[in-house]
Amino acid sequence: MSNPSLLILPGDGIGREVMAEVRRIIDWFGANRGLTFDVSEDLVGGAAYDAHGVPLHDDTMAKAQEVDAVLLGAVGGPAYDDLDFSVKPERGLLRLRKEMDLFANLRPAQCFDALADFSSLKTDIVSGLDIMIVRELTSGVYFGEPRGIFMEDNMRVGVNTQRYTEAEIERGARAAFELAMKRDKRLCSMEKANVMESGILWRDVVTEVSKDYPEVALSHMYADNGAMQLVRAPKQFDVIYTDNLFGDILSDCAAMLTGSLGMLPSASLGAPMENGRPKALYEPVHGSAPDIAGQGKANPSACILSFAMALRYSFDQGAEADRLEQAVQDVLADGVRTADLMQADGGTPVSTSEMGDAVLAKL
Amino acid sequence: MSNPSLLILPGDGIGREVMAEVRRIIDWFGANRGLTFDVSEDLVGGAAYDAHGVPLHDDTMAKAQEVDAVLLGAVGGPAYDDLDFSVKPERGLLRLRKEMDLFANLRPAQCFDALADFSSLKTDIVSGLDIMIVRELTSGVYFGEPRGIFMEDNMRVGVNTQRYTEAEIERGARAAFELAMKRDKRLCSMEKANVMESGILWRDVVTEVSKDYPEVALSHMYADNGAMQLVRAPKQFDVIYTDNLFGDILSDCAAMLTGSLGMLPSASLGAPMENGRPKALYEPVHGSAPDIAGQGKANPSACILSFAMALRYSFDQGAEADRLEQAVQDVLADGVRTADLMQADGGTPVSTSEMGDAVLAKL
Ligand SMILES: CC(C)[C@H](C(=O)O)[C@@H](O)C(=O)O
Ligand SMILES: CC(C)[C@H](C(=O)O)[C@@H](O)C(=O)O
Repeated sequence: MSNPSLLILPGDGIGREVMAEVRRIIDWFGANRGLTFDVSEDLVGGAAYDAHGVPLHDDTMAKAQEVDAVLLGAVGGPAYDDLDFSVKPERGLLRLRKEMDLFANLRPAQCFDALADFSSLKTDIVSGLDIMIVRELTSGVYFGEPRGIFMEDNMRVGVNTQRYTEAEIERGARAAFELAMKRDKRLCSMEKANVMESGILWRDVVTEVSKDYPEVALSHMYADNGAMQLVRAPKQFDVIYTDNLFGDILSDCAAMLTGSLGMLPSASLGAPMENGRPKALYEPVHGSAPDIAGQGKANPSACILSFAMALRYSFDQGAEADRLEQAVQDVLADGVRTADLMQADGGTPVSTSEMGDAVLAKL
Repeated sequence: MSNPSLLILPGDGIGREVMAEVRRIIDWFGANRGLTFDVSEDLVGGAAYDAHGVPLHDDTMAKAQEVDAVLLGAVGGPAYDDLDFSVKPERGLLRLRKEMDLFANLRPAQCFDALADFSSLKTDIVSGLDIMIVRELTSGVYFGEPRGIFMEDNMRVGVNTQRYTEAEIERGARAAFELAMKRDKRLCSMEKANVMESGILWRDVVTEVSKDYPEVALSHMYADNGAMQLVRAPKQFDVIYTDNLFGDILSDCAAMLTGSLGMLPSASLGAPMENGRPKALYEPVHGSAPDIAGQGKANPSACILSFAMALRYSFDQGAEADRLEQAVQDVLADGVRTADLMQADGGTPVSTSEMGDAVLAKL
């Protein structure tokens, strides 16, 4: 049998720096755990635009469709701010999500013991926090038609369309319920059913799906209240299921609760391929961080932990994923800190590659 | 000249309890400060549904159009959860906003000195916090057409439309810039211009309007990053301008930062009427709180402070507004606390009317 395949898309800014560390981790698993991957690398985002005038080349898209998993760094940067919307770096990411049909975006918001003090929230509010946000990723206002800027009565009108079919809501809901079954068996669904018909349908379909998961306690919350509750008492949640746009905002809000954005991974999963593995893309929650790019300051942990998610969700290597996650935790427990994890009074931060070294040393 | 007129719509749940205290405050201003209002009262939300089968009677709507200001308590409650969407209590509120054309929703998120410890955020992150969120309130996905649940290929599809004209974005932006001029002259506009064309137009129009306010420092932020930054370092903001849906979520998030939702007022302003006053509706940020309704536990401060906003924005009584706000602050400084403002270790909470008494005693 051939090795599982990985397509690496470092992208822009610190995406490239953190991905270099992940490659070393991947090599370690090959050399020491008999987990050898066929790794290829390609361009996405601004880097692809610079090379090809598009944020994702068709050839890259085709490769992404064929591999067992895609690992992505980050896209974007101020150099691309004035580009036309259709070729912005983000379009590369959105095309990958849409064409690979990665409908379930898993975003854990976890507070690492060694970093509980680091949050802007009081320590007791966040210590031990462990939420999983499941964000629907291929529909909603991100992709709905009609969309655009139109002329009407001599005036510009900006239009986007929120659009959800039952099937789209349902498959994401099933992914969320499955995760809840492996966790604390609680699922909170968030929408604005008091204002939006798409939210009414959302609530309806999630309630319907819940009948197949009688062990999971389902609750519903309006998304604005959800944002409040995330700030007030985030530990009340286990799994949250929400749509593409609410998920974008709520998962960033949840991520920031932990105070360590540089630590948070994500997985975007689609339907099973012929080999049984889901289509999958893994990426850190943080962006390309132009302000620190190229300085060797970035924290590679989020991208490393995204590879751990790949081990778990794409390659059925839960124990190896645990090993990698534990290594990251151990490094933190030792007090090793990249610049983003320093308190004002903290010592000297380590560099991106020193953080990589430290994780490798723990493996 | 006739007295200025106020329409009071207590609505549902604790809306009724907190409004009773506001009426006493209004009476005090009549008796002691020569500010006499013609006050009428009517039904909205579930209360209107119970009486008339609709969440806002046409007669009430007509009255709201005629008065100088509307004061609203809160709408909704579990008794109405299963109603048809078109007659839900929230529809009453949305109809008022839309037909009065209240396009600028002002939501201060202020951390009260005496309550800084009360936030789930670390005290130094929130103490002294003073943000003003200006939310566009009459357009966007709340009102865009087409909307509904449609059948397509034998499947239900939920559709809502985000729609903004230049003029809609512009008038809200002007309100936001005007406020910034009276504050710290910084305005941050939030959208998802990286994903939504309506966000591109938003950014464009706000940038255009900013040319009329050269003293105001304008910045732009994606709404997901906005949510993060609100949690990470909220004091970086002065005025935030955002759309109806993002504003719903971000302002609730900002409100919760202060930890004292029971303290936060709002103003919704429209175009000037013939007498020069803006169309206006004032309401607390909190909802009808069914869990504590009818128990005399609710904190009337947010509704009282909403009346203070009415004094300032509808009746040009800035000094009287300051007086009322100071009275509320003084009551807090004395340690008087309703149940929502108690720490786990705190003493005995006062009732809704005792809180009203305390504010009156300070006036
Ligand atoms: C970069 C951007 C298009 C993207 C999104 O809005 O989904 C990002 O915010 C995310 O959450 O992955
Ligand atoms: C009650 C509801 C319709 C309303 C909204 O979504 O605007 C509320 O959340 C608010 O923010 O005033």
